[in-house]
Amino acid sequence: MNTWNIIIEGFNKADITKHESIFSLGNGAMGMRANFEEDYTGDTLQGSYIGGVYYPDKTRVGWWKNGYPEYFAKVLNAPSWIGLHIKINGKLLDLNTCLEVKNFRRQLNMKEGWYERSFTAMLPNQQEIQVKVLRFLSLRYDELGALRYEITPLTTETTIEIESYLDSGIKNSDANWDERFWNTLDVGVVQNYYAYITAETKKTRFKVHTFMHNTLRLLGDQPHFFSPSKENKKDNYVGLQYEVSVPAGKTIRLDKFGGYIISKGEEFRVSPNGLTMYEREKYIGYTLTERPNAFDFLLKMQKKDWAAIWETSDIVIEGDEKAQQGIRFNIFQLNQTYSGKYAHLNIGPKGFTGEKYGGSTYWDTEAYCLPFYMATKGAEVARNLLMYRYNQLDKAIENAKKLGFTGGAALYPMVTMNGEECHNEWEITFEEIHRNGAIAFAIYNYTRYTGDESYLKDYGIEVLIAIARFWAQRVSFSKEKQKYVILGVTGPNEYENNINNNFYTNYLASWCLRYAAEQVITLQKEGITKEETQQWLHIAQNIYFPYSEKYGVYLQQDGFLDKDLKPVSAIPAGERPLNQHWSWDRILRSPYIKQADTLQGFYFFEDHFSKEELQRHYEFYEPFTVHESSLSPCVHSVLASALGKTDEAYTLYLRTARLDLDDYNKEVHEGLHITSMAGTWLSIVEGFAGMRVKSGKLHFTPRLPKHWKSLSFKVIFQGEIKEIKL
Amino acid sequence: MNTWNIIIEGFNKADITKHESIFSLGNGAMGMRANFEEDYTGDTLQGSYIGGVYYPDKTRVGWWKNGYPEYFAKVLNAPSWIGLHIKINGKLLDLNTCLEVKNFRRQLNMKEGWYERSFTAMLPNQQEIQVKVLRFLSLRYDELGALRYEITPLTTETTIEIESYLDSGIKNSDANWDERFWNTLDVGVVQNYYAYITAETKKTRFKVHTFMHNTLRLLGDQPHFFSPSKENKKDNYVGLQYEVSVPAGKTIRLDKFGGYIISKGEEFRVSPNGLTMYEREKYIGYTLTERPNAFDFLLKMQKKDWAAIWETSDIVIEGDEKAQQGIRFNIFQLNQTYSGKYAHLNIGPKGFTGEKYGGSTYWDTEAYCLPFYMATKGAEVARNLLMYRYNQLDKAIENAKKLGFTGGAALYPMVTMNGEECHNEWEITFEEIHRNGAIAFAIYNYTRYTGDESYLKDYGIEVLIAIARFWAQRVSFSKEKQKYVILGVTGPNEYENNINNNFYTNYLASWCLRYAAEQVITLQKEGITKEETQQWLHIAQNIYFPYSEKYGVYLQQDGFLDKDLKPVSAIPAGERPLNQHWSWDRILRSPYIKQADTLQGFYFFEDHFSKEELQRHYEFYEPFTVHESSLSPCVHSVLASALGKTDEAYTLYLRTARLDLDDYNKEVHEGLHITSMAGTWLSIVEGFAGMRVKSGKLHFTPRLPKHWKSLSFKVIFQGEIKEIKL
Repeated sequence: MNTWNIIIEGFNKADITKHESIFSLGNGAMGMRANFEEDYTGDTLQGSYIGGVYYPDKTRVGWWKNGYPEYFAKVLNAPSWIGLHIKINGKLLDLNTCLEVKNFRRQLNMKEGWYERSFTAMLPNQQEIQVKVLRFLSLRYDELGALRYEITPLTTETTIEIESYLDSGIKNSDANWDERFWNTLDVGVVQNYYAYITAETKKTRFKVHTFMHNTLRLLGDQPHFFSPSKENKKDNYVGLQYEVSVPAGKTIRLDKFGGYIISKGEEFRVSPNGLTMYEREKYIGYTLTERPNAFDFLLKMQKKDWAAIWETSDIVIEGDEKAQQGIRFNIFQLNQTYSGKYAHLNIGPKGFTGEKYGGSTYWDTEAYCLPFYMATKGAEVARNLLMYRYNQLDKAIENAKKLGFTGGAALYPMVTMNGEECHNEWEITFEEIHRNGAIAFAIYNYTRYTGDESYLKDYGIEVLIAIARFWAQRVSFSKEKQKYVILGVTGPNEYENNINNNFYTNYLASWCLRYAAEQVITLQKEGITKEETQQWLHIAQNIYFPYSEKYGVYLQQDGFLDKDLKPVSAIPAGERPLNQHWSWDRILRSPYIKQADTLQGFYFFEDHFSKEELQRHYEFYEPFTVHESSLSPCVHSVLASALGKTDEAYTLYLRTARLDLDDYNKEVHEGLHITSMAGTWLSIVEGFAGMRVKSGKLHFTPRLPKHWKSLSFKVIFQGEIKEIKL
Repeated sequence: MNTWNIIIEGFNKADITKHESIFSLGNGAMGMRANFEEDYTGDTLQGSYIGGVYYPDKTRVGWWKNGYPEYFAKVLNAPSWIGLHIKINGKLLDLNTCLEVKNFRRQLNMKEGWYERSFTAMLPNQQEIQVKVLRFLSLRYDELGALRYEITPLTTETTIEIESYLDSGIKNSDANWDERFWNTLDVGVVQNYYAYITAETKKTRFKVHTFMHNTLRLLGDQPHFFSPSKENKKDNYVGLQYEVSVPAGKTIRLDKFGGYIISKGEEFRVSPNGLTMYEREKYIGYTLTERPNAFDFLLKMQKKDWAAIWETSDIVIEGDEKAQQGIRFNIFQLNQTYSGKYAHLNIGPKGFTGEKYGGSTYWDTEAYCLPFYMATKGAEVARNLLMYRYNQLDKAIENAKKLGFTGGAALYPMVTMNGEECHNEWEITFEEIHRNGAIAFAIYNYTRYTGDESYLKDYGIEVLIAIARFWAQRVSFSKEKQKYVILGVTGPNEYENNINNNFYTNYLASWCLRYAAEQVITLQKEGITKEETQQWLHIAQNIYFPYSEKYGVYLQQDGFLDKDLKPVSAIPAGERPLNQHWSWDRILRSPYIKQADTLQGFYFFEDHFSKEELQRHYEFYEPFTVHESSLSPCVHSVLASALGKTDEAYTLYLRTARLDLDDYNKEVHEGLHITSMAGTWLSIVEGFAGMRVKSGKLHFTPRLPKHWKSLSFKVIFQGEIKEIKL
C-alpha cells in the first residue's frame, strides 16, 4: 500500500483489460487506456480518446419510437500514437507469446502524474530482455504526450528492430453498426524522426493531425543516437523503422512524443517543412533531436503542474491508508478527466478510460461533480461547467420542441456531447426529465458557494427561464386531485419507469419554478411577463407530492405502498446485483431502489426539512436501496453522516471509495467510474467533515470514522483557500 | 367495383410496392408478394415466404435488459422461383425503363384463387409487346405454385430470350444485422426443363429444395414446344435459357411450376434422376412436358378447392358493394394465410405479404382470428390453432422460468414462431402478460362454441393450470389496499406502459384463476392439490379492480383520472395519428387509447355485465380511443352494435373493413393487416348479425346498417352448417 502510487505486480493475462483501465492517463483534453506500446495478441481493449471529438453514430433500437434522435454523438476511439513493433533477434515482442514474463510491474505515480511499466521477458527464441516504459500526457500542453521505452538485452548482443508507428485504422468497439468513423486524408514523414497521419471524422469532419517524434539512443557514457533505416507508409499507417545491435547489459532508449492537433472546418496551417505552425511554436523548442533532454524537461514540468493541482485538492486522512490511497486515486482521475480550461468539454462517466456511455455528459456533472471542482479548482473552472450548459441552451430548446414543447421551453438532453440528445431508451431519454432540475440546482449551488452572482445574472437566468417554461408545460392539472401532477417520468431510481408523481421530480420542478420566478423578479429580467412568473409560482405552490400519513414520508411515487415491501436484506445474496439476476419487469415491480431518489431530494434540499424528517425518510428508504448505481452510496453516506450514523456512513462510503481499485462490480475492464469518484469526495467533505454553506459562510460538523486520526484538506471558498484540519 | 375480383388498372411506379401487397398470394403453407416475374429496377419489396421456416435473428436493442431473448425467430424471405429475365430483340424487359406501358391491369380473382397481370409495353428499342401472366399457389399441394407467362410481339417478328431462374441470394429487408440467412448447398439442372437449388437456413438448418419446371411453347393450331438452349449455373442461382423467334401477333407461352420441398434434419430422398421421391409421387403425373395441359389441370383443381372454401365462408351483403368486396377480400386473405391443416403453423399479422412483425404468432390469433376459423372451417381447424399453444407449453414454462417464475407457471411469448419469445421491448415482452389470458379464453371460447370438451380435457387443462400458476405468482398482495394487485403491466392499449392494476389484465387474471380451478375440480384433474386451487379461487376473489364511483366505470388502470381528460375530438386533425406526430412520452401521459383495453374485457365477458354497465363504459372510453391499432375498431363496432348504436358501429366497421384495399394508413406497401381482417368478420357476424352462443345455442340479434338490404352467410356450429339470412 502506497498512498501516492498505485502499484500492481505480476503478469496475469486475465487482468490486462482491467489494468488498462486502472492505469489510464488523461490530461483533460485527451486520454488513453494503459495499452501496451509493443504488440500484444492477448485480450485487450485499445482506447485513445480526444475530448470533444465525436461522431454521430446511427441510433440502434429494437423498435423505433417517435422522438428518438436519429443519430447520436459518441466519443471516438482516436488514432493511436504510442505503438511500437519490436523485434528481438527477428522475433516479435508480444507478452502473450513470451516463454516467461518476470518482474512485471505497473506503477501510477499520482503525485507526479506519470505511469511506468517494467518487465523481464523471455521470448520464444530464448532471448531475454528487460523493458522499462514511462509515459505521461502533458498537463501543460493539451496535445502532447510522451513515452520513454527502454530495452536491455540480458543474454547476448542482440539485434533490436523497432518500428515506431501511428495507426488510424481504428474502430469503436461500441459502434452501433460496426462502421469506421475515420477517413485518413494524409500520411506523411516530414523528417526522419517526425511523421503524421491526418484523418478526418466522417460527418462531423473533425480533422485530427496525429503526430509522432522519435529519438532513439544507446545509453552509455557517450550516448549514441540512431536514425531510422526505413519508412513504412500504408493507407492508415505510418512507421519509422530502426535497427540497432545492442550488447548484453546495454540499454537502448526511445523517447517518443505524440499527440493530436485538432481542427474543425479550417485547414491546418502547415509550414513548408510539414509541421504545423502551431506545433512549431509550441514544441519545436524542446522536442528536436538537438534537445535530447526534451523528455526530462517535459517530465519536470509535469511534476510541477501536478504539484500545483495537489496543492489545493489533496485530502489527507491519517489512520486509514486504503481510504487515503482511494481518495487520491479519485482526485487524480477527476483531474485527468477534466482540467476546467474549456467550456466545451465536460466529464464523461468513464472519462478517457473506456467507450461505455459514449463519453458524454450526464446530470452527474451537476449533481455530483460540480462541488468537487468548485472547491478544489475554484469558481472559474466550475463556471466553465455551467457555461457548457448555457452554450447548449438553444439545442435544449430545440430538443424540447421535438417533444412538443413550445415558447422557449428547454429540456436538456439526458446524455450529450454537443447539446443534442444521445440516448435511446424512451424511459430515460424522454422521461428522466429531473435532469433539468439538477442543471438549475447547479446554478443555485454555484452562486451560493462561490458568491459569484454574475453567472446567474448574465447567463444562468436564461437557463432558469427556459427550464421553468418546460416545467410549467410539463405538469398537468388533475381534476381528481385538484393539484398539478407530473405523469410518466423516470426518477433518478431507474428501477422504476414511467411512474406518476415522482416526489424528487415534482419537488425539483416546484423548486425550479419558484427559484426562476424569484430570480426573474430580483434581477428585473425583461421580456418575461408578470403573468408568466405568477403562473410559475402558482404551479410551484400547487404541485402534488405523494405522501403517506402512516409512515410520515413522502412517497417515491404514486402507488409505492402497493408494492411488496420486503427490505433488501430479504433478497437472497445470490440474486444480487438484481440487474444481473432478475428480469427487468421483476425489478420494476419490486420496491428496490437503484440509486438515491427521494433521498437525492433530501440531499439537495437538506435545509428544507427537519432532522426528524430526514431521519424518517432515510430510515424508510435505505432498507429498499440496492445501490446498484455507483452514484448512490455517496448520497446516503452524506445523509447518514448528517444523522450522526457515522458507522453506516463509513460502510456506504466504502462502496464507492475504492470501487475501481478493488473492482467491486467486476466491470473495471470497461473503464473507470469517473463521475462517481466525485461522490467519494462528497462523502468525505460533505459527509464526514460535514461541510455546508449557510448564510454565505462555510461550516464544518466533523463526524470522522472512529479509526481516522485526522482529516485535513483545503477548499477554495469564495475566492479564498481555506485549510481545514479535523 | 367487382365483388369477387380486385381489379386495378394503370401503371404507376409509386404504387408498385403497395400493389405487391394487395395482390399477394398464399396457400397457407407458403406465400408471395405480387412481385413481377420479369426484371424490375424500380421500387419493389421482393418477398417469398415459407410457413414455419424461420431464422433466429440476433436481437437488436438499444440497451440490453436482463430477460431479453438473445435471438429471435423470424420468417425468412425464401429463394424465389418466379423469376424470368426476358430480352426482346436483345433488350431487357423492365417496366421501369420502358418507353410506354399501356393497358396495365392486375386482377385478383378471389372466387377462384388466381392472380393475373397484363400489359402492353414499348421497350427502349421501340419493340412493342403484349404480356399476360396468370399465377396461383395450389391449395391442394402445399409446395406447389404455377405461373403462365405469355408474350406477344406486336410490331415485327421478334427474337425473345427467356431465362427462367431460381435465386437463393436473397436477404430479409428487416434483418437486424444485415446477415444472410441462407447457405446454398446445391444448384442443379436435372432435366432440360427442371432445375433446383437446395439451400439451408443458417442455425435452424431447414433444408429447402426450391424447384422449377418449365414448358415453353408457341401457341397456334399446332403448338410448338421449345427446349432451353443453355443452362446458367452460379453460386446461388440457376437459370434455363430459351431463345425463340416469334412472328408479330403470335404468342409464346411459358408454363412454369415451382415451389419448395422442406426437410428438417433429414436428407431429401433424392431419386437417381435428381427428383425427390416426394416430387415424383406428387407431381410427376401432371407437370411433365408429356402432359402439356398440366397448368390447366392444376388451375381447374384450384377453382374447385376455392369453391369449397367459399361454400362455408362467404358472406353476402346486399346493398353495399364496397362492403361486399371488402369482406370477401378479408375472408380470401385469411384463407390464403392459414389453411388449418397443420398445428405447427399459425397466423402472422402480415401473413405471407410482408416481413414486418416477423411473420410470427401474436395474441391476435386467439382474440380475433379463432372465431372466424371456428365458424367457417369448423372445429378441427380451430383445434389446430389451440394445439399450437399446447405444443409450445414447455417453452412457455421455460419462458416464465427465465423471468423468475417457478413450479410449472407458464408465460406464453408475446410474439413467437417456435414457442420462444421473439420480441424485444421490455414494456411488451415482459409486461404485456394479458396475452396469457387470451390464450386461456380461447380454450373456453372454443369449448363453448364447438361443444367439443375433449380438447379441454386432454390438452387445454394443462395449459390452464400452467397459466393459473403464472397469475397466482404474478399478483402481489398490497397491504395498503388489502387486495391482490398486478403491478407493472402493459394492457392491450400499448399507449400505456408499465401501469398498475390494468382492469383488463386484472379481470382476465381473476377469470383465468377461477376458470382453471373450476375445470381442475370438474375434471378431477390429478396432481393439483386442493390447497392450490383454493389459493387460486382466493386470489380470484380478492383481485383489485380500479373503479371510479363518480363515473361508475372501472378504470383502465390506477391513476387514469389524473390525466388531462380531453376527448380525441379535441386533438387537432394534423396531429393524428398520434404515433406519427407526438413523442412517445407525450402519448404515454395522455389519456388516449390505442386499441380497446377495458372494452376488450367487456367484449370477452359481455355476459358478466349489464347493458347499462356496458353502455357507461363504452361511452366513457370510446371518446379517448384513437384506434391506432387495426385491431381496435372492430371490438368497438361489435359493442356499439350490441348497444343498438348501429350507425356508430358502421362507422367503426368501415375503419378496418377496407383498411388495406383503400390503404387508409398509408402502409400497405409493408404488407396486409391479416389478423385484423378477422376483426371485420367479427364486426359483421358478432356485431351486425349479433351472433352469440348462449346455453349451447346460437342466437342472432340482427342490427344491420340502414342501407344493407340483407346479410346472409353460413356458420359451422357444433358440427352443423347453419344458413343465416338476415
